[in-house]
Amino acid sequence: MDERVREHAEVLVDWSARVEAGDDVVVSVAEAAHELGVAVAEALGERGATVTTLYGSDELSRAYLKGAEAGVDGNGDGDDDNGDGAAADNAVPTFDDDPAVDRAIFEAADVYLRIGGGRNTTATADVSSETRQAYAKARKGVREARMDTDWVSTVHPTRSLAQQAGMAYEEYQDFVYDAVLRDWEALADEMAQMKAVLDAGEEVRIVTERDDAPDTDVTMSIAGRTAVNSAASVAYDSHNLPSGEVFTAPYDTEGEAFFDVPMTIDATRVRDVRLVFEAGEVVDFSAETGEEALASVLDTDAGARRLGELGIGMNRGIDRFTDSILFDEKMGDTVHMAVGRAYDACLPDGESGNDSAVHVDMISDVSERSRMEVDGEVVQRNGTFRWEAGFEE
Amino acid sequence: MDERVREHAEVLVDWSARVEAGDDVVVSVAEAAHELGVAVAEALGERGATVTTLYGSDELSRAYLKGAEAGVDGNGDGDDDNGDGAAADNAVPTFDDDPAVDRAIFEAADVYLRIGGGRNTTATADVSSETRQAYAKARKGVREARMDTDWVSTVHPTRSLAQQAGMAYEEYQDFVYDAVLRDWEALADEMAQMKAVLDAGEEVRIVTERDDAPDTDVTMSIAGRTAVNSAASVAYDSHNLPSGEVFTAPYDTEGEAFFDVPMTIDATRVRDVRLVFEAGEVVDFSAETGEEALASVLDTDAGARRLGELGIGMNRGIDRFTDSILFDEKMGDTVHMAVGRAYDACLPDGESGNDSAVHVDMISDVSERSRMEVDGEVVQRNGTFRWEAGFEE
Repeated sequence: MDERVREHAEVLVDWSARVEAGDDVVVSVAEAAHELGVAVAEALGERGATVTTLYGSDELSRAYLKGAEAGVDGNGDGDDDNGDGAAADNAVPTFDDDPAVDRAIFEAADVYLRIGGGRNTTATADVSSETRQAYAKARKGVREARMDTDWVSTVHPTRSLAQQAGMAYEEYQDFVYDAVLRDWEALADEMAQMKAVLDAGEEVRIVTERDDAPDTDVTMSIAGRTAVNSAASVAYDSHNLPSGEVFTAPYDTEGEAFFDVPMTIDATRVRDVRLVFEAGEVVDFSAETGEEALASVLDTDAGARRLGELGIGMNRGIDRFTDSILFDEKMGDTVHMAVGRAYDACLPDGESGNDSAVHVDMISDVSERSRMEVDGEVVQRNGTFRWEAGFEE
Repeated sequence: MDERVREHAEVLVDWSARVEAGDDVVVSVAEAAHELGVAVAEALGERGATVTTLYGSDELSRAYLKGAEAGVDGNGDGDDDNGDGAAADNAVPTFDDDPAVDRAIFEAADVYLRIGGGRNTTATADVSSETRQAYAKARKGVREARMDTDWVSTVHPTRSLAQQAGMAYEEYQDFVYDAVLRDWEALADEMAQMKAVLDAGEEVRIVTERDDAPDTDVTMSIAGRTAVNSAASVAYDSHNLPSGEVFTAPYDTEGEAFFDVPMTIDATRVRDVRLVFEAGEVVDFSAETGEEALASVLDTDAGARRLGELGIGMNRGIDRFTDSILFDEKMGDTVHMAVGRAYDACLPDGESGNDSAVHVDMISDVSERSRMEVDGEVVQRNGTFRWEAGFEE
């Protein structure tokens, strides 16, 4: 076994999930993540934890959902077999909205470790979006119970993910381990400085003036909001490995922002997005590619036109776009803004932030000719933070 | 997908487990059983069941148990790291004897489907038997909760199982599907005749007089005992797919029995076993190969020297020994006797039968020069039952 697999397991179990003897740990292992699953099981045995292993197979999920579609239709031939008058080929299955076993699992679990890494990132492509939504809706209670555990999501580098990233397999393995095997303690300390600036600040302004792209000049209020130091550990309210971002929940956004890092919305590639904000709302937008998918997101509900998140990527182990939000939004020298839902952790107790059914992150490269100001003071210029060597006042 | 995989899934879900809409079904998928897992998930979706999938990986189990061993030892180097004076390399880990998540799973589940089929039948070979026993002991409550569901155990034909059977992969697939894809309704009807004979009978005598093997001439009482028609369905109190045997719980065994079908006890091949019974107890024994392993079984406890089961193999789809008890004991033209624990289903309500920590099946070929008598009447001669064409009175 590649020694890095073992190190990844140890970071996950010790730094991220803080597993202790006696913890009841649920591990979900994706189809091609067996090797990391083995390393994690060994580490959990060593720590004296109790383990239950789920099989996180996209192909099984797809088969189950397609089976449910065929069940509604009777035999899957698209005819109205049961004579209920419903157009059979549009029939949406119903799912138990209180699934007893899954609820019991997450109510009993202390820790949930999700190890992604399948064999085909489009394994569920032919399941209708209505069926997906019906299933997701029925699983709301399970999702909430899962969120109440000390949960951490990571991925094992697989050939399928390498392909999605446009990389060779070994190249992608190096990329993932550069992102995951960091000195998290040191990064958490550095990010604490960024969090302190945001927590004390009232207004953020981000400006980019590059020759090859439309300008960004956007301001937003962060008064009263709390930033999260997302250091890849439940001890920091951070549930992704890798992580490495500081994020908060802005409001009253004004100005124009341009996002040059590509992204995927509902299987559609979207790039070069421009958003124009007035009084906190998107009043104009465009995208060089995938504008329709962007429009559909912004039209979801009222909250989808307002920002729910401003995030500052600080993981310098991530140095390229790989079409995976787990990595992309934490890339060093980037900032991202998400339209849609805000995270409760950023809000005063009992207050609710921007509400929406969506949360879609958009990323800007800030490595060149850019600056971020908090209350008029430059915090980051051309990707370099003010506490770093080489920062130009 | 091989159409037989889909048929296997349908037999498992419909005939064996009797899954209905709304059932909470837990499926355990072994490492190389993905394809059958997919077919089962699809069938469960069609039936309107709710599904939770466990990953039944022997390699993960081995890693967890080895990790637990290393945890006791401190760092797995065999030294007495914690200074407790215990010989570290003999240190046995302790396990939570009330594992909350697994107990919750099986208490909430209606149906449990175990799909075996790994990549290496000896994947856990280097886990000490003390550790295994400690783990098995801690899982007693989970095992009992699992037994309270409508559970069914089957296997997907894998290369590893083909290798254990000494067969080519495609040859083994044909073998498995011949055993599994039967007309179970018809076999259940045929086996009902055998059950009726045993339920009405008081004494069974089995005789073989082959030139190439020691004689068998053994009698046992079955008065007051109830036979199980093991027709591969929970509707018949039968939890294996394939099944195809009728079994009961005999007592007061007298005489000599010879078992020519090879078997594996604790990873030791044992063959040509001879047992001599007096007043229900084994008073003498021998084995051509593996006699020590046999002796160790018989010395486990008092019940290990008495029979717990007499079974009549009636699945003619199984026509050869494959070193897997799931198949071997159901082979047509065989009978088997097990030393050790009796099944409650064979006993009058509230009565307990032979008790023991072990249950080890031993199998005899009865296809030639053999007969089975119940209360003096021949029921089976040379493998042919008295209701079959060609039976010689």
